[in-house]
Amino acid sequence: MRIVLDAMGSDENPAPDVEGAVLAAREFGMTIVLVGEQDQIKRELDNHDTAGLPLEIVHAGQKVTMEDRPGEVGRAKPESSMHVGMRLVKERQADAFVTVGNTGAALSIATLHTLKRIPGVSRPALSTILTLQGKAMILLDIGANADCRPEWLAQFGVMGSIYAERALSRKNPSVALLSIGEEAGKGSTLVKEAAELLQSCGVNFIGNVEPKEILAGTADVVVMDGFSGNVLIKSMEALGNTLFGLIRSEIKADWRSAIGGLLVKPALKRVYRAVDPFEVGGAPLLGVDGVVIIGHGRSNAYAVKNAIRQAQYAASGHIVEAIRDGLSSTITRDDSLPESSH
Amino acid sequence: MRIVLDAMGSDENPAPDVEGAVLAAREFGMTIVLVGEQDQIKRELDNHDTAGLPLEIVHAGQKVTMEDRPGEVGRAKPESSMHVGMRLVKERQADAFVTVGNTGAALSIATLHTLKRIPGVSRPALSTILTLQGKAMILLDIGANADCRPEWLAQFGVMGSIYAERALSRKNPSVALLSIGEEAGKGSTLVKEAAELLQSCGVNFIGNVEPKEILAGTADVVVMDGFSGNVLIKSMEALGNTLFGLIRSEIKADWRSAIGGLLVKPALKRVYRAVDPFEVGGAPLLGVDGVVIIGHGRSNAYAVKNAIRQAQYAASGHIVEAIRDGLSSTITRDDSLPESSH
Repeated sequence: MRIVLDAMGSDENPAPDVEGAVLAAREFGMTIVLVGEQDQIKRELDNHDTAGLPLEIVHAGQKVTMEDRPGEVGRAKPESSMHVGMRLVKERQADAFVTVGNTGAALSIATLHTLKRIPGVSRPALSTILTLQGKAMILLDIGANADCRPEWLAQFGVMGSIYAERALSRKNPSVALLSIGEEAGKGSTLVKEAAELLQSCGVNFIGNVEPKEILAGTADVVVMDGFSGNVLIKSMEALGNTLFGLIRSEIKADWRSAIGGLLVKPALKRVYRAVDPFEVGGAPLLGVDGVVIIGHGRSNAYAVKNAIRQAQYAASGHIVEAIRDGLSSTITRDDSLPESSH
Repeated sequence: MRIVLDAMGSDENPAPDVEGAVLAAREFGMTIVLVGEQDQIKRELDNHDTAGLPLEIVHAGQKVTMEDRPGEVGRAKPESSMHVGMRLVKERQADAFVTVGNTGAALSIATLHTLKRIPGVSRPALSTILTLQGKAMILLDIGANADCRPEWLAQFGVMGSIYAERALSRKNPSVALLSIGEEAGKGSTLVKEAAELLQSCGVNFIGNVEPKEILAGTADVVVMDGFSGNVLIKSMEALGNTLFGLIRSEIKADWRSAIGGLLVKPALKRVYRAVDPFEVGGAPLLGVDGVVIIGHGRSNAYAVKNAIRQAQYAASGHIVEAIRDGLSSTITRDDSLPESSH
């Protein structure tokens, strides 16, 4: 297996990206193709013992930054490491592409400029993989589509279900729909219409869920529109950061707490790791014609390594082929969907 | 001032409700009218020293439960404590109504069966008041309207701004709009159209915010549609509960952490209280023709007391009159709003 890594992705690139590639090559044994400014990558590799590791470099003369606008960078920087890396996947010279760079840019470059959509896919969806108490679940869409149609949500359910089965090793994955209140009659018009479609599109649809059920691990796949999904993920991130920040400062507030803080530090670290997105590293952009895994810009080498492992799962599960086949055998194909009528 | 309290609201009613009324009457000195099953209320009052306290009882023969469906209970239980209590406000026999009972039922009974809307209000909005590091801010809508129109969001901004000024003592309150990404060009169609209206409706609109800016206290008022708002609040609640649950269990995992846990307990309690919704107790249902404050069903007496204080702030700030006047002087009135055209 050959996995392409965008070496210029993370906030501190290329150091964490390159180190993550070294760790992944050593631990998992697949070939990692590092794409980016080759002199910088070589210099960074010199800091590691890479003897015998299956690492390659492909040069890319441009680099996407966090400041680049997703709508412009696709045309403005056609030789970016994202473009070059995704083209390698498109030309079947590699099995998957991984970046922890600008998410909007990766979405735009994949969807519009390089890999494009799998035939039959209405809209690609950005996902995230949550792990809690050892159970992984996939949430989508978390931000690619701020305005959604019910048919797209049903398709997200099909794609998420295939991912859960092929890459997260779930049998007959349960699919739920984010709503407010669990009753079928509650929620927005979009949710009510999407719930009907999800019931008849061949996935194991278990109904509507609220955020607490998501965290309880009720479903393997949770479908949502990109606006609510983004709000959900960012609300949890923001509250998590606020709480850990408050805990850190309150524990420093007096000597008694400070001593206690030293003693509970390992316990708090376990809690932090239980909800740390770096444990999974990255999640797929589903619906594009090639495996693309996107991680956080703040990723360290450990997170990059884990994102590469996620790419391995997705590629060895042949998720792109499975989505192509899955969509052609369900009613969620664009051309066979009933018009919404509610 | 006379404030009506639904004595049959909390999950453990009427004990926490009645005790909250006793605490509020003692601490704040206003008259509290307890509405509900009078024998139960009297029995509960016997457990407290109420000598000289301005407490009254008004009997209501029916009671709304958490299982009652909001859409049905308005007609099905016309003599519920919510109906009877809100009618007292409508007939100007009291200045405000407080309940920690079934939120959907309170919304429906207020909007459709008793107080009804303030003239000019398109849709009442459910709000919540967050306090972080001592700063209170109001978020609305958090669940009354799952499908929203841009004009409604602009009106929520006007009503929230008036509340922040009159009840939370903010001068020229800043109003923000929940979105994904802070740039004006990002977000859903609804958000883009609402942002334009908020710019020209006379409030101090500071632009779009994400959940982390909300928690940082960037704005006094944050406007959102009821679906995303509900997802935001419930995501934060769910993550908070999950984190505190994990911390509790990890701290018990070994003797070293257990000892540390005892020492950091006061620090963790301070963190918990910093994000505890019971500190505010309740938040207004804005846009109905009377002050209605709604708190959590899980409320204890302390939360009920704080919800009563919130009602006092709202009533003494004359928010209903201010909203009536405010709407008639801004362009967010239904009849003067431009049609959305994007």
